[in-house]
Amino acid sequence: MSCDFLELAVPGVRGMSPYQPGKPIEELAREQGLKVEDIVKLASNENPLGPPPSAVKAMAESLAELARYPDGSSFLLKQTLAEKLKVSPEQLTMGNGSNDVLVLLAESFLDAGSSAVYSQYAFVVYPLAVKAVGAEGIAVPALNYGHDLDAMVEAIKENTRIVFLANPNNPTGTSFSEQALLGFLDRVPEDVIVVLDEAYYEYGVGGDLPDGIELLDRYPNLVVTRTFSKAYGLAGARVGYSISNPEVADVLNRLRQPFNLNLPAQFGAVAALQDDAYMQKSIEVNQQGMAFLEQGFSDLGLSWIPSSGNFITVDLRCNAMPVYEGLLSKGVIVRPVANYGMPEHLRISIGLPEENRRCLEALGQVLA
Amino acid sequence: MSCDFLELAVPGVRGMSPYQPGKPIEELAREQGLKVEDIVKLASNENPLGPPPSAVKAMAESLAELARYPDGSSFLLKQTLAEKLKVSPEQLTMGNGSNDVLVLLAESFLDAGSSAVYSQYAFVVYPLAVKAVGAEGIAVPALNYGHDLDAMVEAIKENTRIVFLANPNNPTGTSFSEQALLGFLDRVPEDVIVVLDEAYYEYGVGGDLPDGIELLDRYPNLVVTRTFSKAYGLAGARVGYSISNPEVADVLNRLRQPFNLNLPAQFGAVAALQDDAYMQKSIEVNQQGMAFLEQGFSDLGLSWIPSSGNFITVDLRCNAMPVYEGLLSKGVIVRPVANYGMPEHLRISIGLPEENRRCLEALGQVLA
Repeated sequence: MSCDFLELAVPGVRGMSPYQPGKPIEELAREQGLKVEDIVKLASNENPLGPPPSAVKAMAESLAELARYPDGSSFLLKQTLAEKLKVSPEQLTMGNGSNDVLVLLAESFLDAGSSAVYSQYAFVVYPLAVKAVGAEGIAVPALNYGHDLDAMVEAIKENTRIVFLANPNNPTGTSFSEQALLGFLDRVPEDVIVVLDEAYYEYGVGGDLPDGIELLDRYPNLVVTRTFSKAYGLAGARVGYSISNPEVADVLNRLRQPFNLNLPAQFGAVAALQDDAYMQKSIEVNQQGMAFLEQGFSDLGLSWIPSSGNFITVDLRCNAMPVYEGLLSKGVIVRPVANYGMPEHLRISIGLPEENRRCLEALGQVLA
Repeated sequence: MSCDFLELAVPGVRGMSPYQPGKPIEELAREQGLKVEDIVKLASNENPLGPPPSAVKAMAESLAELARYPDGSSFLLKQTLAEKLKVSPEQLTMGNGSNDVLVLLAESFLDAGSSAVYSQYAFVVYPLAVKAVGAEGIAVPALNYGHDLDAMVEAIKENTRIVFLANPNNPTGTSFSEQALLGFLDRVPEDVIVVLDEAYYEYGVGGDLPDGIELLDRYPNLVVTRTFSKAYGLAGARVGYSISNPEVADVLNRLRQPFNLNLPAQFGAVAALQDDAYMQKSIEVNQQGMAFLEQGFSDLGLSWIPSSGNFITVDLRCNAMPVYEGLLSKGVIVRPVANYGMPEHLRISIGLPEENRRCLEALGQVLA
């Protein structure tokens, strides 16, 4: 090579390493010579029920239109979402997954002269998005694996433009109350944007998780992000969104790629939004699976971080990698979180009853 | 609002206005009270045949897996593409449409201290992507509506990091020969990346369009972009890609959102790549439609820019907007190009024979 192209890249990109996704089932099958149907994947916080049949039907019907560009304004999807969430379509920014919206926020409001605050153990996309635009990332030490909201307010500097919060947080599953959130928002300067990532919000309904959308009127600097990848069972369709004041949405939509949402995905999301039975079942399966895994960990003498999401992070009190590898060899894929600074934990997504049982059984064998 | 959020945005974003897509069929139907099936849309250079049935079938079969994240490495699609194009998978960067890859290139190699060169009348995504990262865009005056490659070499400055070329160019349809391209590439400094956008490449096969991929070995600074949105008939699926040296691909893949390609889209693209009959028919329908429209324009006494794409840009020698509006009222959607500085032209995508006939008929009536 006559030229070092990495050296030509902008500084933020030069220092980046790519996101490490959960190991795909097909990859493990190739590597270990296992059958795809014998593998249990509890690594990416996916909905174990499979996609909503209503969404699959709507998407299948839309495929005949695939030679057309998608509706760049997501007219129908925004109307349906706005009605369901009791907001106006002008408050919505659609993303190719909420990852896309998080990146748009960083690209819109951060540059080499500014900084963003997030928590230790917070979702890795926040530091990645901040680094990509050359801004400074300020990671605030966690409190019991959760956000230390007081310390996060105090970490805000003159040049801070965004604070990223996740409620519940991935990969720890921790959450904070409405009271704690209000106390935080009251102390954040009004020109600092607070991104409240509620990717796992639906799993916490009925508990004491605050609903960020209800707070948007009081805090114009608040941006709530949600996704169809978790409780709505459409991770493969890539649909996420933010709800914010219309002025922030206008900024994000200037930068948004015009056709960032795939055509069938828009129809699938509309159908999923109306499928209350699927959502109800998703939440029930998750609650039962969570209780089953907690009991199993307890029986194995393991402790875990109490979780408000669709996953649970277990503490092995030893290097987790050999356990992860041992589970892989038994066809069970879970998620190492050493890249989050948690080398002795594994994150396990809640599966179907049989998947949870196989995971616990394999874990018992590997630890023995 | 207590705070001006647009003022908080980074300078590049503050100055942006969003991309103007072709008017969606549903929107015109809503506005004019027309039936969707009575509307002819020749506005977005879409494949009038509809999507390849092989791709629709593959995508429909994949929908059961939608609760899973897509394969972030696009393993199968990259293998299939690499084999077809006779490159290695490490040379490929997959994008959510080639728009995504163009934006990744700008974000990876441009910042507020650098500049990029493109042609007058070139695809509007180039200046948008350049502006978004705060870089300087240098638009070089066109020669007969096409790229003036000599002037573009001369426009390269000390801080220029990217030159964008489009062959054929959208919205003018102009193209340049292999000889002209080689003469250009030989004069570009080796640390300036040349992005050769070949979104319409397949329509020019058999003519004298160069194949950028064949030149990659000789020019490590060359990046070729292609798409499934045009001749492959999958605009709604959002799949584009670049082929480059592996080192540039590594940079782009660091910044790429990990799940930027939707799950069914990956399967659809694999099927489309193997569907030679569909591609053959797409090219034939395009050639016949192009000849038909050229004859029709000639009969109406209109001139046009000779096109190597799946569209043709006609010169009305008067303000094109009333003609555009007149066509809309007759249920025919074409594309105004005033935003490209061509207020007297309209860009018309090649449709099916009946669509081309209706377009010409409506045009004759509106002009009369």
